[in-house]
Amino acid sequence: MTAHLLPDMAQKILAGDRRALARAITLVESGRADHRAQAAELLHELARSGRQALRIGLSGTPGVGKSTFIESFGMQLTAQGLKVAVLAVDPSSARSGGSILGDKTRMERLSRDPNAFIRPSPSQAHLGGVARRTREAVSLCEAAGFDVILIETVGVGQSETLVAEMTDLFILLMAPAGGDELQGVKRGIMEMADMILVNKADGDLKPAAMRTVSDYAGALRLLRKRPQDPEGFPKALPVSALEENGLQKAWEDMTTLAAWRRENGHFEARRAAQARHWFETEVREGLLARLSSDPAIRARMTELGDAVAAGNAAPAAAAQEMLARLGA
Amino acid sequence: MTAHLLPDMAQKILAGDRRALARAITLVESGRADHRAQAAELLHELARSGRQALRIGLSGTPGVGKSTFIESFGMQLTAQGLKVAVLAVDPSSARSGGSILGDKTRMERLSRDPNAFIRPSPSQAHLGGVARRTREAVSLCEAAGFDVILIETVGVGQSETLVAEMTDLFILLMAPAGGDELQGVKRGIMEMADMILVNKADGDLKPAAMRTVSDYAGALRLLRKRPQDPEGFPKALPVSALEENGLQKAWEDMTTLAAWRRENGHFEARRAAQARHWFETEVREGLLARLSSDPAIRARMTELGDAVAAGNAAPAAAAQEMLARLGA
Repeated sequence: MTAHLLPDMAQKILAGDRRALARAITLVESGRADHRAQAAELLHELARSGRQALRIGLSGTPGVGKSTFIESFGMQLTAQGLKVAVLAVDPSSARSGGSILGDKTRMERLSRDPNAFIRPSPSQAHLGGVARRTREAVSLCEAAGFDVILIETVGVGQSETLVAEMTDLFILLMAPAGGDELQGVKRGIMEMADMILVNKADGDLKPAAMRTVSDYAGALRLLRKRPQDPEGFPKALPVSALEENGLQKAWEDMTTLAAWRRENGHFEARRAAQARHWFETEVREGLLARLSSDPAIRARMTELGDAVAAGNAAPAAAAQEMLARLGA
Repeated sequence: MTAHLLPDMAQKILAGDRRALARAITLVESGRADHRAQAAELLHELARSGRQALRIGLSGTPGVGKSTFIESFGMQLTAQGLKVAVLAVDPSSARSGGSILGDKTRMERLSRDPNAFIRPSPSQAHLGGVARRTREAVSLCEAAGFDVILIETVGVGQSETLVAEMTDLFILLMAPAGGDELQGVKRGIMEMADMILVNKADGDLKPAAMRTVSDYAGALRLLRKRPQDPEGFPKALPVSALEENGLQKAWEDMTTLAAWRRENGHFEARRAAQARHWFETEVREGLLARLSSDPAIRARMTELGDAVAAGNAAPAAAAQEMLARLGA
């Protein structure tokens, strides 16, 4: 894309043009320096719109029925006239080159809904790249007028923390557990959760689901009270994505929580801290990118690295020389 | 320390002065910019000595008898006239502020041995800092004429990988397992191991230890053959640190492996790759350190961060501005 097309793209995104939105997301996914500059300009342009969506992070391991939940929950929101975007942070795509390519087929009804927009996880070399692209895609979707942005992730490694750091609410979707044993939810993940939804509260699994809800509710009560929570939060609720039960109650609780946080300053404070964190992360990654993107610097890195490998320079001394050259 | 004392310190270290060595390790542990420059100069000076020790990484979870093993193994080496240094990479010290302060009391006999040098893990804010300090302490100990450097770590998180990346041999110390069940050794850790030593092959536990050795030997045979291994490696062996059994056999196998790798070019190739990795890591960390150490840069980071947090600038655009200012 040439630079003079950017204002046109911005106008189209603000008008809700989905093809322009898709192209803009492709732009922010690119790692090329000129694309990064264009993406920054576009995001700067669009930030003026002041549009805000409710950003909801959703984590659940494979098998909990995440796709079905997103489809049912998403359809329920669009039926109320809300515009819903679904993005994914998939750490496995960094390795396999995009394993959630099937997003749209996983959510067939939602993908055909004119008020919904589904974008699969990009394939990127590292999770940091996926995170940046997703944060920027969120901004683009907000400018395009979406009301709710669902960011889904499988609970693997750092991906839950990354998603929690870019959303207003963080929801864990769980399956009914056998017996009274809680599924292996790490304490750190539990502490990030605003709500635990136990799916499959239907048919034979319903009793197990209700028991699991009560187990999680008990576990959540043991956590230290957070200033950003009103009475009763974080909470555990049963849902059935299959039978579309409990979804409205879950949505009402989400909006109640978001409204309380807005009124009490926590909502904006969290967004401010997230924006600062995003800025600092991007500066750090940009600094490091220079080592591989600038040919002269890369050549000197190789040269000094060769000298160190051959035993002709001490690593620390060579590093000092390189840093001096980099002006650091 | 003032800079003109560095050549004096270097001379003393080369002469095997333990107090000078201890002071030099304190110097490389410092994060201060002037100390970093002095440390780089000192390491550069000492690198010329060309002295090499056998660097042995040793990982074992609490309870496997790691201290007893190091004491018995170390005493056995010093009895053969070898000089032995013991360093620690303790990830928990990064949080607790130094939990292996008791190193010397854990190894009472060894710490009184004039041919041994024991240095507890430093307390540092992050594991990367501990890693750098340990790598540099290894260089100092080599210059001071130590023949064997043992670097111990508890098997937590990234610490095993860090230790494997700075040593010539990587040893896992394990306890006898109950039944035929292997202890939860991750495949990745198993693949890094050159030798698995099953400790406590004495008294009642001896049969269990022998069975565990055979289980691990079987598991190691299932791994892909590595080019850096001669026939029969990696291997599992029983030892008793308490009764000082099997230690000589383990040492002979270590020297056999090291000799084979030297003859076949793997030993130097690994050191070369490690040195290059260390150099690159230090450049990256130095670049990032600039963001917090330079007052003008830090002030601008805060300023732009404030603007981003207040919604007056898009994170990506602010990051581009900061990077332009940093010359990146």
